[in-house]
Amino acid sequence: MLTGFARVPSWLDTRSTVRQASSPLTIRTAGRGLYEFTDRVRGWVSETGIRDGLLTVFVRHTSASLLVQENADPEVQRDLERFFARLVPDGDPLFEHTAEGVDDMPAHVRAALTQTQVGIPVAGGQPALGTWQGLYLYEHRRAGHRREVMLHLIGD
Amino acid sequence: MLTGFARVPSWLDTRSTVRQASSPLTIRTAGRGLYEFTDRVRGWVSETGIRDGLLTVFVRHTSASLLVQENADPEVQRDLERFFARLVPDGDPLFEHTAEGVDDMPAHVRAALTQTQVGIPVAGGQPALGTWQGLYLYEHRRAGHRREVMLHLIGD
Amino acid sequence: MLTGFARVPSWLDTRSTVRQASSPLTIRTAGRGLYEFTDRVRGWVSETGIRDGLLTVFVRHTSASLLVQENADPEVQRDLERFFARLVPDGDPLFEHTAEGVDDMPAHVRAALTQTQVGIPVAGGQPALGTWQGLYLYEHRRAGHRREVMLHLIGD
Repeated sequence: MLTGFARVPSWLDTRSTVRQASSPLTIRTAGRGLYEFTDRVRGWVSETGIRDGLLTVFVRHTSASLLVQENADPEVQRDLERFFARLVPDGDPLFEHTAEGVDDMPAHVRAALTQTQVGIPVAGGQPALGTWQGLYLYEHRRAGHRREVMLHLIGD
Repeated sequence: MLTGFARVPSWLDTRSTVRQASSPLTIRTAGRGLYEFTDRVRGWVSETGIRDGLLTVFVRHTSASLLVQENADPEVQRDLERFFARLVPDGDPLFEHTAEGVDDMPAHVRAALTQTQVGIPVAGGQPALGTWQGLYLYEHRRAGHRREVMLHLIGD
Repeated sequence: MLTGFARVPSWLDTRSTVRQASSPLTIRTAGRGLYEFTDRVRGWVSETGIRDGLLTVFVRHTSASLLVQENADPEVQRDLERFFARLVPDGDPLFEHTAEGVDDMPAHVRAALTQTQVGIPVAGGQPALGTWQGLYLYEHRRAGHRREVMLHLIGD
């Protein structure tokens, strides 16, 4: 068996009892960085009562994004930020869109390089994340923001 | 409430009346750059009559990709292109796959760095995009192409 | 008509007979590089008997990722690897998370820049990939690993 993984059986649901649920989720950020919200998503999935299906997480912004990343060692998140800060530096003279601040256009580029949406299969009432996977909102602006994520779940 | 967002209520659909729709969409490009097709997708979603569910947009190419980006200021799209042109320059001697042109391998790399697919929850008959979010096909080749995108919608 | 594409008709399924299937898939890697598993996914989709719907592929790791890329010329895959090796070099002094090896933090960054999940519409019992598109697991660690991918299919 796979070490470190909950075993997930194969299944085929032949009944037709599929239903769906959706909810917005607000995440308040205190500026640039990764904000884990795995537990809030797990809680919502559990509340819906849907045991098996597909969870979709969508961020309604273009200067924040989503990442599934390691949640064991906080150094990983700091190193990710260091990498993006070097690859897409604030105030880069390449950019002409500067009216909203030196960190605005870099925020759009960072969002383009990461994810606007993540789909995660749900099994046994829980998102089928790997052992070390956490779900993060990546705030790319220096200032804190109130970010909205849409959750959608379809299944049985 | 969230300023600038249409308010989206939470819901759980306990009936089992889920259905689905799908359609190919052709996008003609005139060479490298971002082509917004949000309105065409909104129109199609509306035509299906499905009010709440999950929309999936998939591009059937490896030298064009998808992006959800800001649609307010066209400078943002030009700056995005400037960034990718610097990060993945045409004719880079690093690349050995040059038989299809100096812009072909850079196009594959740009596609790998952005998205092949985007999933967007649908609420009240419309994709639940944020106020400033538009859906774009990103043409990475210099020449114009006829690109095919697959739309899929499942819901109620 | 679109040259090089199987023609995909538009459709709207008004019956409510949606059902779903899911399965884990193990992919053994022999170190860094792209591993195509398109045929295994095609085989599984076919086995489920679901003809039209949405396939989701999710990788349960943060140092391996997914890519839809060209499967015609193996040079493309080697050039992709060359690009990522230059962009995110092993042993980069920028990184502090080095306890798991000089290639571990670069693996997390490469995963962040590519995909954790891909959704692909299914039409006529097959994923609606373009003619040149293949589905790849991208192993970012130097050593071989046993990787787990979750497949989910919902449709009719």
